[in-house]
Amino acid sequence: MRRMKIRSYAYTKGPDEIKFKDGSRWRHPYRVKNSYQLDMYEKVSREAVEKAGIEMSDIDLIIVASAGMVQMIPCTAALLQERIAPNSGIPCMDVNTTCTSFITALDVASSFLVTELYQRILIVSGDLVSHFINPNQEESFRLFSDSGVAFIVETTKENKGILYSKQETWSEGAHTTEIRGGLTAYGPSLYSEDTKEDFLFDMDGKSVLMLTLDKLPKMLKETLQHNNIQLSDISKIVPHQASRALFIVERKLKLKKGQLINYFEELGNMVSGSVPYTLGLAMDQGEIKEGDLILLIGTAAGLTINCMLIQL
Amino acid sequence: MRRMKIRSYAYTKGPDEIKFKDGSRWRHPYRVKNSYQLDMYEKVSREAVEKAGIEMSDIDLIIVASAGMVQMIPCTAALLQERIAPNSGIPCMDVNTTCTSFITALDVASSFLVTELYQRILIVSGDLVSHFINPNQEESFRLFSDSGVAFIVETTKENKGILYSKQETWSEGAHTTEIRGGLTAYGPSLYSEDTKEDFLFDMDGKSVLMLTLDKLPKMLKETLQHNNIQLSDISKIVPHQASRALFIVERKLKLKKGQLINYFEELGNMVSGSVPYTLGLAMDQGEIKEGDLILLIGTAAGLTINCMLIQL
Repeated sequence: MRRMKIRSYAYTKGPDEIKFKDGSRWRHPYRVKNSYQLDMYEKVSREAVEKAGIEMSDIDLIIVASAGMVQMIPCTAALLQERIAPNSGIPCMDVNTTCTSFITALDVASSFLVTELYQRILIVSGDLVSHFINPNQEESFRLFSDSGVAFIVETTKENKGILYSKQETWSEGAHTTEIRGGLTAYGPSLYSEDTKEDFLFDMDGKSVLMLTLDKLPKMLKETLQHNNIQLSDISKIVPHQASRALFIVERKLKLKKGQLINYFEELGNMVSGSVPYTLGLAMDQGEIKEGDLILLIGTAAGLTINCMLIQL
Repeated sequence: MRRMKIRSYAYTKGPDEIKFKDGSRWRHPYRVKNSYQLDMYEKVSREAVEKAGIEMSDIDLIIVASAGMVQMIPCTAALLQERIAPNSGIPCMDVNTTCTSFITALDVASSFLVTELYQRILIVSGDLVSHFINPNQEESFRLFSDSGVAFIVETTKENKGILYSKQETWSEGAHTTEIRGGLTAYGPSLYSEDTKEDFLFDMDGKSVLMLTLDKLPKMLKETLQHNNIQLSDISKIVPHQASRALFIVERKLKLKKGQLINYFEELGNMVSGSVPYTLGLAMDQGEIKEGDLILLIGTAAGLTINCMLIQL
């Protein structure tokens, strides 16, 4: 086990509620020039530090684990540090596996705790999806909400931490979820009325779901076998809230009723914010408690799938 | 010590030589729509795997550690996997601290080796800088070269690995090196003849140098003290080849003649490719040998500084 304790957390969502047939989405009004991604990150970082009863200077690493960056240079964590801990020297880095970036960041953070490179790490996830969804692609436009989520994790002598994690990337799905334009493959100078959709989110939801249903059950089976446990030993499963199709995943994985936490209707898909927001909200609502054995699972653009067993 | 062995490496630079007063730069001809970043990554990844005498399927994690991504979604490592290991399931992630991304990726990779999450990791760095430098900003335009660099690192029982590493980020320098446009703060739809420079690299070299000269000597001093060694115990220092001002850094750090490897005139600044390219070339030229104690140092946008002591 990679010992790790969740010291505190905080989350926020986009300010405007938009009601779709399959639930509410939370969006920031689109303004092409804005600082809202960092505004959300600053808010939740300050709240998490306050809840932990520590000072910002007690953090010894800032990881931003999001799908979308604020600027191409510098890394987003450095821009966040400018807001919350200037002149601190706290090291900053970005980790990116799109929607499951938070789970990958927990792999990184927990490994850093084991090697004692760092002792207390602030992980910030969530995306400003309002700024890159395509109103003409109804399927994906209806899915997403903005969010910012902060978790502070630290070393512990208690029997808490990550028991197991596994990640796989299946690049046959690399183009089923993408934003093609804006960076080195397809520069911003190509932006025009004709090309503008190339700079927006593009998803083939059916292909993503098919690949997920093919790969995820095998990964779950391996996770159970490797840890010599039954599905029923897991208190709650915290999934990436990818879409309405969560209920199909639930059925395919043969989960008990209520075992999978499904907030899709009230929150939508929060991209990198989805897993940590769901985890934080479930803890606040008492659905997940200290001592529980939980499983984080998620699919991300790539197609990447993650599975992480945590003893809380 | 985090035990880690460099199994193999490979590097490539931009195809066209451009001669400036202070040396050669290596660039790819600018074509707004292109795949050259991935072309370089594919080439060096295949070469590194071949030199290691292994199969691609023997790699169990792909980390892309670059300043610039190929697309906003998915992560660059997934797009690389599509080229070199489709249908493999090899997990993919991006790590970003701009110019020192490779050093940070070594922190991540070596910690993963310690926790046994992964056993053999492909780290790919380097940037397609030709596509975001500003011809109107002479100072920075003259600095950069394109590159792709791959290192394969793995677990070992030998007495090799990372003895010490330290990273600091000083966000008072967050805007001295940046690309403001293209992502969520300043969207691609703002691109025009009037704004196009906001989508290109912008650097205040003097401010970066002043902050570096203030912070780097302290970090080096701490590194020596913490490891109870003298500067003369270090065989070679592999710096990020930031600029001509390397000789000022060399003097300020009071290094022995020849201790700092300076390839700036022949290679230029390769952004995230700079440190690993310098390391690989120095090993090939016999300047660095197995058994050497070396120090990687670098500054990055953020402003981030890194220092890593490696027993080869």
